[in-house]
Amino acid sequence: MHIFDQAIQLIKQSDGLSVCKTTPEYQNMVGPYGGALCAILLNAVMINEKRIGDPISVTVHFAAPVAEGEFEVKATAVRTNRSTQHWLVELIQSGEVAVYGTVFTGIRRETWGDGESRFPVVPAPETITHGFHVTLPWTKAYDFKFIEGGPQVSPLEGKPSQTRMWIRDEPPRKLDFVSLSSICDSFFPRIFLKRGYRVPIGTVVLTTHFHVSQEQIDQVGDGHLLGVADAKTYGKGYFDQSSELWSKEGMLLATSHQMVYYKE
Amino acid sequence: MHIFDQAIQLIKQSDGLSVCKTTPEYQNMVGPYGGALCAILLNAVMINEKRIGDPISVTVHFAAPVAEGEFEVKATAVRTNRSTQHWLVELIQSGEVAVYGTVFTGIRRETWGDGESRFPVVPAPETITHGFHVTLPWTKAYDFKFIEGGPQVSPLEGKPSQTRMWIRDEPPRKLDFVSLSSICDSFFPRIFLKRGYRVPIGTVVLTTHFHVSQEQIDQVGDGHLLGVADAKTYGKGYFDQSSELWSKEGMLLATSHQMVYYKE
Repeated sequence: MHIFDQAIQLIKQSDGLSVCKTTPEYQNMVGPYGGALCAILLNAVMINEKRIGDPISVTVHFAAPVAEGEFEVKATAVRTNRSTQHWLVELIQSGEVAVYGTVFTGIRRETWGDGESRFPVVPAPETITHGFHVTLPWTKAYDFKFIEGGPQVSPLEGKPSQTRMWIRDEPPRKLDFVSLSSICDSFFPRIFLKRGYRVPIGTVVLTTHFHVSQEQIDQVGDGHLLGVADAKTYGKGYFDQSSELWSKEGMLLATSHQMVYYKE
Repeated sequence: MHIFDQAIQLIKQSDGLSVCKTTPEYQNMVGPYGGALCAILLNAVMINEKRIGDPISVTVHFAAPVAEGEFEVKATAVRTNRSTQHWLVELIQSGEVAVYGTVFTGIRRETWGDGESRFPVVPAPETITHGFHVTLPWTKAYDFKFIEGGPQVSPLEGKPSQTRMWIRDEPPRKLDFVSLSSICDSFFPRIFLKRGYRVPIGTVVLTTHFHVSQEQIDQVGDGHLLGVADAKTYGKGYFDQSSELWSKEGMLLATSHQMVYYKE
């Protein structure tokens, strides 16, 4: 079993309730990597037999640290309509909610469509050797290839904090919504780029929007995705961070938006 | 009392539970204007005596239509830390959750800060006469002044769907987080601009991030805000829409990101 599938594995108990446990491969500085937690919450909806349609939006609140070991995940369909569904998902450890969030799923149908955001002109992943050289376990669970705005640059104060990178699971794994939700949190904090060094940070809430159907994501495969991240403003202890994830063929798969606490 | 304060008025019942009712001034095509519903949910947190800090993130799921009349609003502090708090808020009508969401509040402290998004060069609101001429009640509760991408333009297919507008409450009202959360939903759907006509739409989920403290928002006053909205992609029944709200002095107050259902 792939390390990612081990990390998100939910053992069903009763209606909507599952048991899960942390795995060493997705550990971050304190507790599990946030992307893995997003994936676990989304997975609780994906495996629920009452689910209608594909995931379209996921919002996750990182309310408290998750300790190593077991926890419960509870997915509740708050409201079910004919072709859409609104969920609440809670991660409970030692009797307290540590992480929680909401998910929206809906049946996607053929409609008129158009892309406004354009796939940038970038060098192919095979040509990039600039990786991620940090010791945090979760960073080894991905293959990072930085095109610009990598973690080893000089301070960018006064300049935009954009990062462009190729990324895929390491070892490679066929993309699905759950792994994509995790990849959406894989951009290191923009403030590290702005300041040129690490400052204490923590994402407090992250929202991911999916722009493709199950059928479309099934076609992406296990290759690198193009990730683009930036931020709009930093002040009074919080900054925002947004990302785009594209297939190599230029399909916008997901966007994400988060608020991050910092101390500086 | 200002019509907005009437619309968001919550009558406290027991711990975290309030009663509210729809008002004619903020009615939309079907049920209340979504921004007013966001404001009501956020207001339930703002008036809660257990609240810690300023609102930083609000996510609202529009799960079912809200009928004219009374409803209950329930705000629950899911997790309270030393200087941050994570909330769940539910709007219940006829015993069912129609709208629900999550709120993050936190104490904002002096830190290093920087803006990346730049305030655009735009004509002053006094020079703009291009308003909103639709009959929906809620549009009369705002003064719209369109700089570009107004609702009366020709189809934009293949071009970006950006709107820039000045907006304030009508009659004027001193800005606060609750009214700002409502204004974040005031941009008409980007697909109307792309197609050049109205198609059936409905926002399913909207996230608002606040970038200012209580002290900063208190200084904005009752003048026009600059609003900028755009979208990244449209397909298979859903599109995304993002906005920025700026004070006239060039302070980025809030950003919002939503997913919108459409039939076309």
